[in-house]
Amino acid sequence: MLDAPRPAPDWQVARWFNTDAPRSLSHLRGRVVVLHAFQMLCPGCVARGIPQAQRTAELFAQAPVAVIGLHTVFEHHEVMGPAALEAFLHEYRIRFPVGVDVPGEHGDPIPRTMRAYAMRGTPTTVLIDAEGRLRKQVFGAHEDLLLGAQIGLLLAEAEGLSKRGAVSRATGAGCTDSGCTPAA
Amino acid sequence: MLDAPRPAPDWQVARWFNTDAPRSLSHLRGRVVVLHAFQMLCPGCVARGIPQAQRTAELFAQAPVAVIGLHTVFEHHEVMGPAALEAFLHEYRIRFPVGVDVPGEHGDPIPRTMRAYAMRGTPTTVLIDAEGRLRKQVFGAHEDLLLGAQIGLLLAEAEGLSKRGAVSRATGAGCTDSGCTPAA
Amino acid sequence: MLDAPRPAPDWQVARWFNTDAPRSLSHLRGRVVVLHAFQMLCPGCVARGIPQAQRTAELFAQAPVAVIGLHTVFEHHEVMGPAALEAFLHEYRIRFPVGVDVPGEHGDPIPRTMRAYAMRGTPTTVLIDAEGRLRKQVFGAHEDLLLGAQIGLLLAEAEGLSKRGAVSRATGAGCTDSGCTPAA
Amino acid sequence: MLDAPRPAPDWQVARWFNTDAPRSLSHLRGRVVVLHAFQMLCPGCVARGIPQAQRTAELFAQAPVAVIGLHTVFEHHEVMGPAALEAFLHEYRIRFPVGVDVPGEHGDPIPRTMRAYAMRGTPTTVLIDAEGRLRKQVFGAHEDLLLGAQIGLLLAEAEGLSKRGAVSRATGAGCTDSGCTPAA
Repeated sequence: MLDAPRPAPDWQVARWFNTDAPRSLSHLRGRVVVLHAFQMLCPGCVARGIPQAQRTAELFAQAPVAVIGLHTVFEHHEVMGPAALEAFLHEYRIRFPVGVDVPGEHGDPIPRTMRAYAMRGTPTTVLIDAEGRLRKQVFGAHEDLLLGAQIGLLLAEAEGLSKRGAVSRATGAGCTDSGCTPAA
Repeated sequence: MLDAPRPAPDWQVARWFNTDAPRSLSHLRGRVVVLHAFQMLCPGCVARGIPQAQRTAELFAQAPVAVIGLHTVFEHHEVMGPAALEAFLHEYRIRFPVGVDVPGEHGDPIPRTMRAYAMRGTPTTVLIDAEGRLRKQVFGAHEDLLLGAQIGLLLAEAEGLSKRGAVSRATGAGCTDSGCTPAA
Repeated sequence: MLDAPRPAPDWQVARWFNTDAPRSLSHLRGRVVVLHAFQMLCPGCVARGIPQAQRTAELFAQAPVAVIGLHTVFEHHEVMGPAALEAFLHEYRIRFPVGVDVPGEHGDPIPRTMRAYAMRGTPTTVLIDAEGRLRKQVFGAHEDLLLGAQIGLLLAEAEGLSKRGAVSRATGAGCTDSGCTPAA
Repeated sequence: MLDAPRPAPDWQVARWFNTDAPRSLSHLRGRVVVLHAFQMLCPGCVARGIPQAQRTAELFAQAPVAVIGLHTVFEHHEVMGPAALEAFLHEYRIRFPVGVDVPGEHGDPIPRTMRAYAMRGTPTTVLIDAEGRLRKQVFGAHEDLLLGAQIGLLLAEAEGLSKRGAVSRATGAGCTDSGCTPAA
């Protein structure tokens, strides 16, 4: 249900909403990341993708899962600017952090993160594991049961990582009950 | 299920979409009019009101029923202008005529038709009979079964009117199988 | 939206639920009748037809509309008997009157009312006007908006009938403000 | 999202449908088991629980996940017998194995497996890990996203178990690329 790990490009964000601090991929290490790429005037995003992202954020609020929205505008640029997005987020009561993808270079209508991930369109759901690796990318509607299972598999990996991390910290950099040591 | 008839104010429209000719109330005499007032960034409109208006337009395409959309922007004016609406109508594949309500006077955030009808918000569904009279105004979600029944009642009235009209046309202005005559 | 009137056969009912008195068609004269033929083990009936009948009964509770259920068992007869139906009506909280169609004659698996109406299967929705005439018969899913409109058209006819009936009553059998008279 | 492991009682089944061989818990070792307890006349089961079980069976068909239905009749016993259940499974096109819970002892209306699991009612979803241990039991509606995540977590455990099992097999009973050996 997951793909072989490959590097996940960091997102390039012009502006963040619903968060004081930028949420770069490197800051999310240790957490399972569910990235929802959408456009505010995309019917499939509004009807299915965004509600799914909202339910995900609510249901996994106690787990190490980060839901991040990404506004990947590739059409109707003039009417989906930050002010329009802000009104949209307010009216739809979207609470998770949402970044605005940086416009494409040299007249490219596709914004940069969308281009870096080679997304086919919106909505696109991207799953990134706790080590920051891309594990699944789905264009269009994605079944709740499958998304849930993929999150569950990645949570299990994250937990294993966390346990092994405790060991590596004990023998390398980091702190144990006995004290703190620098990396060997 | 219908209210006592009262005059229906004509709408004041700055610009029309999905129609070459303006659709004023006087041009719709003889037809049952279903007016759907909405805002493109209103979740209840997008999830329920507009799909209902679309189903109404499709299911009653062969009947003397006119579905008219009215974009009654009373908030976020700067991001719900005509260009944004045009992109919205395109993406949501809305085919029925949609008018943009004229902005309110003297800084009134409520646009003029919305003010004239004393609408409480969006979505608002207005039913106007074949004689151009206001017969029902509903704010918020409106049951398909009830909307259907109200349209059916008004269609029955329109048919009765048409029969009586045929008589009056035969004896007054209009055309019969025998020929055309000017109004007495 | 309605068909040309034709005689509606009365139903043949072995047993009634949710009513003390049998509801024959003749007793329902003056009311618009929505007859919902179903089987308790028919998925389309349970998911769509019966909930629509329940909404119809609730939404038109104040109008001269009678919703009647008819259990037209044409398969799995041995497990859809009256005791099973009674448990089903209880668990699904169905409140409108439901009759059990009389089994077919001479080994006919199709029960008698279903046969008399030439229904193709379940669910089937039948609309009968206030004069007891069959005006529409729909097999399978039926749009709420269209069912509503058909009910509205028949309600308008019933109202016209009632007005004309008031005149006939005034000059024939019945009661007026002046008193009651026998039929001439 | 999962509970601490505790022993899962095996089910007591009077009769199986949709399978030639009984599916006891011991035969399902190594697989994640999703047990759906339902009654055919339970509206919440028909509207939500059973469709969820069907989607689960379809979406995880390629994974080591076993979906098992259990007909836990605790009311209306006389109309929810095996013949009625068989017609129900046929009409609703339910394909996963379904067992009939053995009736309660000494007049107990609660059947035995339902009693052994202390289920509160129907629908109840039970998750059992690949080692045959009870890990979650949910009464009523269960979110697809959460059910999916719980299945994912248990699949990850099963995979780890399988890897460790491969090691133990290499050093004990079982086959490797080099050949097969009896248990030490």
